[in-house]
Amino acid sequence: MKLIQKIIFITFLSVTGLVAQDEHAFFIKSIHDYTLESGQCTEWLAHLSDTIGGRLTGSENAEKAVDYTYNLLEGMSIVDEVTKQPCKVPKWVRGNKEIGNIRWGDPKKGNYEAQKINITSLGNSIATSNRGVIADIVEVHSLDTLEELGKAVLQDKVVFFNRPMDPKKIHTGQAYGEAVDQRVHGASRAAAYGAQAVLVRSVTAQQDDLPHTGVQSYADGVEKIPALAISTNDANTISELLKKWDVTVYLKNSPEVMDSVISHNVVGEIKGSEFPNEIILVGGHLDSWDLGGGAHDDGSGCVHALQVFETLQALNYKPKRTIRCVMFMNEENGLGGGKAYAKASNEKGEYHMAAIESDAGGFSPRGFGCSGDPSVFKKFLAQAQKFEEFLEPYDLYIKAGGGGADINPLKSQKGLLIGLRPDGSRYFDFHHTTADVFENVHPRELKLGAAAMTSLVYLLDQIGLDK
Amino acid sequence: MKLIQKIIFITFLSVTGLVAQDEHAFFIKSIHDYTLESGQCTEWLAHLSDTIGGRLTGSENAEKAVDYTYNLLEGMSIVDEVTKQPCKVPKWVRGNKEIGNIRWGDPKKGNYEAQKINITSLGNSIATSNRGVIADIVEVHSLDTLEELGKAVLQDKVVFFNRPMDPKKIHTGQAYGEAVDQRVHGASRAAAYGAQAVLVRSVTAQQDDLPHTGVQSYADGVEKIPALAISTNDANTISELLKKWDVTVYLKNSPEVMDSVISHNVVGEIKGSEFPNEIILVGGHLDSWDLGGGAHDDGSGCVHALQVFETLQALNYKPKRTIRCVMFMNEENGLGGGKAYAKASNEKGEYHMAAIESDAGGFSPRGFGCSGDPSVFKKFLAQAQKFEEFLEPYDLYIKAGGGGADINPLKSQKGLLIGLRPDGSRYFDFHHTTADVFENVHPRELKLGAAAMTSLVYLLDQIGLDK
Repeated sequence: MKLIQKIIFITFLSVTGLVAQDEHAFFIKSIHDYTLESGQCTEWLAHLSDTIGGRLTGSENAEKAVDYTYNLLEGMSIVDEVTKQPCKVPKWVRGNKEIGNIRWGDPKKGNYEAQKINITSLGNSIATSNRGVIADIVEVHSLDTLEELGKAVLQDKVVFFNRPMDPKKIHTGQAYGEAVDQRVHGASRAAAYGAQAVLVRSVTAQQDDLPHTGVQSYADGVEKIPALAISTNDANTISELLKKWDVTVYLKNSPEVMDSVISHNVVGEIKGSEFPNEIILVGGHLDSWDLGGGAHDDGSGCVHALQVFETLQALNYKPKRTIRCVMFMNEENGLGGGKAYAKASNEKGEYHMAAIESDAGGFSPRGFGCSGDPSVFKKFLAQAQKFEEFLEPYDLYIKAGGGGADINPLKSQKGLLIGLRPDGSRYFDFHHTTADVFENVHPRELKLGAAAMTSLVYLLDQIGLDK
Repeated sequence: MKLIQKIIFITFLSVTGLVAQDEHAFFIKSIHDYTLESGQCTEWLAHLSDTIGGRLTGSENAEKAVDYTYNLLEGMSIVDEVTKQPCKVPKWVRGNKEIGNIRWGDPKKGNYEAQKINITSLGNSIATSNRGVIADIVEVHSLDTLEELGKAVLQDKVVFFNRPMDPKKIHTGQAYGEAVDQRVHGASRAAAYGAQAVLVRSVTAQQDDLPHTGVQSYADGVEKIPALAISTNDANTISELLKKWDVTVYLKNSPEVMDSVISHNVVGEIKGSEFPNEIILVGGHLDSWDLGGGAHDDGSGCVHALQVFETLQALNYKPKRTIRCVMFMNEENGLGGGKAYAKASNEKGEYHMAAIESDAGGFSPRGFGCSGDPSVFKKFLAQAQKFEEFLEPYDLYIKAGGGGADINPLKSQKGLLIGLRPDGSRYFDFHHTTADVFENVHPRELKLGAAAMTSLVYLLDQIGLDK
């Protein structure tokens, strides 16, 4: 059936009030057909991640991405209003490419060996001095080990956090969550015992030469020391060497924390015709780390959300509820955008009936995870069976657990918080690395994710939440 | 918990007869833990697809694969018996690399342009003469169009079948099934109208330069003509050119159909302790096309099945039912192995309670599709909810529809026929091409598939089928 025939048929179904079940199934099929055949999200993603590139909060590229997505939304006839919502965000710049070497050998004989290591500064890290850091490495596998070792062992050393991601976790996000404390808190915890710097095993289950950056956070009142990630191959090498030798490392980086700047969320809105005060949000985050093109993280989430709007427009859909497409700024290192959005929304007394974030990559969608205030979320899990009936032909489920960093601040509005759950097997191969580029996103997988998001938005808009 | 502790705990649960529910959930977690952490299927696949390489039926490589997997099974202490089961199979060899060029332009002015095209012989194709084929191209989009055009148009031409795979199908296997008639039957259908050869658009939704081979089948009583596949990029180019010009093609290939040979299925068996006459089969096919390394198709299926055995061995499992690991020969061009296996099994009066084939790639498993005699299969769909309870934490479903080419001949035994359903988004990017190599299989995705298969085998063995 041609698109125009579909539109006519949908209109016919609506006017005649034919069985809602069939209408929903038919519309969700149209969503998938349109997205898979004509969706433009791949072109948008190529622009965001190849043409613009990495979009670190506060960078010129981040502002280019704001303008680009603002213009896309402005160009859609279905959109009633587009705004750039200001938010104060930190600005951190990487500086020169980091330099790292290790040296080991028998000090009595003086026959040292040395090799380069693949490292990258963690977000918010301060720089080493101009001379760099030279120190012996102490390997640990948890933050708590530091206390056991104490100053006697750690003073003036480079602490090397080397706990790997657990390959046994079925959801890789969980394994990531369990390993990432070393990266986020390692520097301040080690600094408290006099360490000069920290090297953190990249948070990935892959064995390769790519260092993975990501946010790290200094605790108040503790000296700031440089914090860098190291590739898993090099981490394994050092760990092996340490079984036989003392290993000395040389590290040099030059990042800078600048003054905060004003950046923007981009917010597009379609006003609801029947329940305009019940808002359904779809979103992703515009900012990314600087190493790659932010293709999976989270260019994919942004173009998923944009595709929801474009598909609804192509299918001539008139929502009952207000639907917002939000490109958040600064998810990676501060959540400035998410917090500003929730604050403004709360001040206006808004109610987000549901917020759906896509921030787990552009892989084949497996379904949705949802959370929120227990009063709403538990009721929805029962209701979700009704939704799943329509999602089942697309192999999509709705399960408990999920949301998104940018939408979590909306929790107090007591609506649903929902995260798209793509297949997670490959996400942490690319996450926060130079490999997070457009060519590593599969066009079909990306489009399936957009179609899944659009289908859920449609069902939420049509059916609402059981009271 | 360490593996040995797990084994003790499982034994404890068995001995004490503690709640079967918990025991099943715990064992399936152990299956996943072991496979993800220690499964050897990636190493086996590297050997099959990199070290041995493409394993066309009747080739030396195919026999190497027989020996390799036979030896692997022989080396497993859990296996009671390993056999090489003879089967008569066709032997087709590709010969030299195919040569293809197109030429177009204005014959009045004599200013022709020309370019090379990416082509590959389809399986069973005969060779062109030594001089090759030179003819004008006629593009069609379906087999039925041939009758409309008739000899008047098709005589002495090269028929170019150019119907693309439908990107809208959610399961790419369905889109493949709908497009593949051109490849399988195109040559004989076109020969009936006097065509000299056929060129078939590669059955993939990707746009690239890779020609995809695959089986084609000559009808009895019709002249055999050469049949070749062409890359989707070149197919699009020719289609565009044909809108303005006559396009002439030059094709030369040199495959040969040799005498049939004897090859082998490899069959490993663990004898059941309680119901030895109820057989549960897990399998894949050893043979592959020659262009790549047969990594997804179907090295992955073979190592999935082998991993089932290795994992059960590592967990010290003693099955109640007989479990067979079968590496079938000749799935790609004749099903010689599958037919020989079923024939021998039927002659012995065996009953395959369930046969599970993995032949859709080494991608993240989504679940299982099942079919079979209605009397059994419909009852199982109701029972499957019990199974799904245990599979749900691993995001695995059981749905209607599926099986496998090699196990389908077992249908008359009225057991279940089950196909592993991996995510299909990327399968036809690699299928039957030079890109079907080990590096394009993700180790984690491969292992998840093996763990899914093992879990289902375990549940079928423990619970059996509702009578």
